[in-house]
Amino acid sequence: MRIKEEIKNIKPYFIDEKSVRFKLDANESPYDLPDDIKEEMLSVLKDININRYPDPSCKSLRKLISKMEEVEENQIIFGNGSDELIYLLLMCIREGALVTYPEPGFSMYSLSGKIFGKELIPYKLSEIDFSVDADSFDKVMNREPYLCFIANPNNPTGNCFPDDILIKYLDNENTIFVSDEAYSAFSGHSLVKMVKTHKNLLIMKTLSKIGFASIRLGYLIGNRELIKEIEKVRLPYNINSFSQKIAEFYFKNIDLVNRYVSDIIKERERIYKELKSRGVFTLPSLANFITFKVEKNGFYDYLVNNGVLIKDLFPSFGMKNYYRFTIGKKEENDFFMKLLLKFMEEE
Amino acid sequence: MRIKEEIKNIKPYFIDEKSVRFKLDANESPYDLPDDIKEEMLSVLKDININRYPDPSCKSLRKLISKMEEVEENQIIFGNGSDELIYLLLMCIREGALVTYPEPGFSMYSLSGKIFGKELIPYKLSEIDFSVDADSFDKVMNREPYLCFIANPNNPTGNCFPDDILIKYLDNENTIFVSDEAYSAFSGHSLVKMVKTHKNLLIMKTLSKIGFASIRLGYLIGNRELIKEIEKVRLPYNINSFSQKIAEFYFKNIDLVNRYVSDIIKERERIYKELKSRGVFTLPSLANFITFKVEKNGFYDYLVNNGVLIKDLFPSFGMKNYYRFTIGKKEENDFFMKLLLKFMEEE
Repeated sequence: MRIKEEIKNIKPYFIDEKSVRFKLDANESPYDLPDDIKEEMLSVLKDININRYPDPSCKSLRKLISKMEEVEENQIIFGNGSDELIYLLLMCIREGALVTYPEPGFSMYSLSGKIFGKELIPYKLSEIDFSVDADSFDKVMNREPYLCFIANPNNPTGNCFPDDILIKYLDNENTIFVSDEAYSAFSGHSLVKMVKTHKNLLIMKTLSKIGFASIRLGYLIGNRELIKEIEKVRLPYNINSFSQKIAEFYFKNIDLVNRYVSDIIKERERIYKELKSRGVFTLPSLANFITFKVEKNGFYDYLVNNGVLIKDLFPSFGMKNYYRFTIGKKEENDFFMKLLLKFMEEE
Repeated sequence: MRIKEEIKNIKPYFIDEKSVRFKLDANESPYDLPDDIKEEMLSVLKDININRYPDPSCKSLRKLISKMEEVEENQIIFGNGSDELIYLLLMCIREGALVTYPEPGFSMYSLSGKIFGKELIPYKLSEIDFSVDADSFDKVMNREPYLCFIANPNNPTGNCFPDDILIKYLDNENTIFVSDEAYSAFSGHSLVKMVKTHKNLLIMKTLSKIGFASIRLGYLIGNRELIKEIEKVRLPYNINSFSQKIAEFYFKNIDLVNRYVSDIIKERERIYKELKSRGVFTLPSLANFITFKVEKNGFYDYLVNNGVLIKDLFPSFGMKNYYRFTIGKKEENDFFMKLLLKFMEEE
């Protein structure tokens, strides 16, 4: 069997499946739907014909998203999470094509790029404050990558890509720019308005970080001509009937979701201040997580032993002694802070 | 923007979205779950944490399928329908690799193959009775394709791939053989037992034809070493929490599903006999559909105008004057037969 070498050499995506009391590693929202709203949601699902294929074009959902994002219905393409959208984009460009993305950044950019046999050259973020290194970005952009991921904000560093740096390159239509806005609900910053004037700009969004990770619903927004091409590689029934209905239901409860989002932002600011005041090296964050550094070894294990799971940024991102903490509910955040302080005080 | 030429030239997969009284075109089961069972299913969904990612390895579902199929848990890989599994397989082999599949056959083999830039050489089915043409198969197998799809039974011809022809080639491990058993519940024929002795054989199944098209759940069974490689290109969260729970629920109601399957088989045999007795050229079928020929033009439109949607096999399969009729409930089948007879009698 002649499996590609690229595949044989791949180290699979790592998911930490430890069972703990407080799961604060995966940038999920801490808020499940309240029972009464969940009941209402289930009653909506009753209308689904289990035996029938899903609507291949997600018509009802498309209408809702088009209205919310203020774009035409044919400017949207749906994916089984952002993950699938990254696959679709890579499928649209030739083998060996140059792809660039931030480093450190979401590991699916490079992992997927490897799988599809692309030439991968990341642009580096500064080692001091993880801001975009303009020189590193300039160097790779001069090679005219086919695909350039920018993250607004970036995982795991929490910062947005500076608009003024982007603007300088956006006119080169040889490159498709993807603004990954998975966490944009927490930053309030989106490039979606620029889609009108730049037909090589795509906005990538997902419901996963704002309370709907279970249904796997992502979407791309872009110029209709580009969307039409990507649409050709989308599997016709990639969004199942349940995900469609629940995503539609989300739009009916958008006020509730927005309230949760602003609670998370408030908690993020509170924890950020507290970490800073305790002298912890902490990155400012526009997302639903905070990345910080603990020089003393063993912090991850210490937390796990105390029932808290966070993300150790060394294995996946090469960031030694850095950790990413997903903002949870107040009591979760307090519990985490208490453990952190205790760990730092102990000899 | 440098979209691949392969993609630019693609004609998208066609889905007939006409709204009709009787939808008998997509090989879905006509049976939705009864209300009381659906209620029970919804109550199971209550346990899902909407805000959390799905179980990336589908542990509970995996246990159930491993037991049913009598294979180890690490011999299974899940897909967002068979469609996604075809993508994953194509991703594992190099660009330009030779891929073969039956013609006429499921259009996703060739469409996906085109998207991934493979060399596509179908093996032809006989023009008389659509049996596998041993010479055509021999010719392509001598070129040692990387991937060979065989369908058990085949869509849209309803026949199985002859075991004795397959056996002659199966020892060549340069080829991965995929037995597409999407319709095997209706044929009672599966190659799953041969996976033990042939590590280059994969079995592809789906719940879509037996009443669960809405959830998009397919799986591959094969040797654990091969499955391990394919697993590397599977998106970690490709099966969402709702699909997992509902698929698990299916296994609790397998007796009901089996009853529906045997009702469909009975109806298939009844309609087949009736078509034959009326002199309609009809292919024997081991699936949940019947393919037949109506020489007089205009049959598809005539049915649509009377509220019945079936599949015209000319646009997608090049089979002029052939139609594929999905077995429905008795009243649907009777209604269809009445229209067919009326159409044939009219001048």
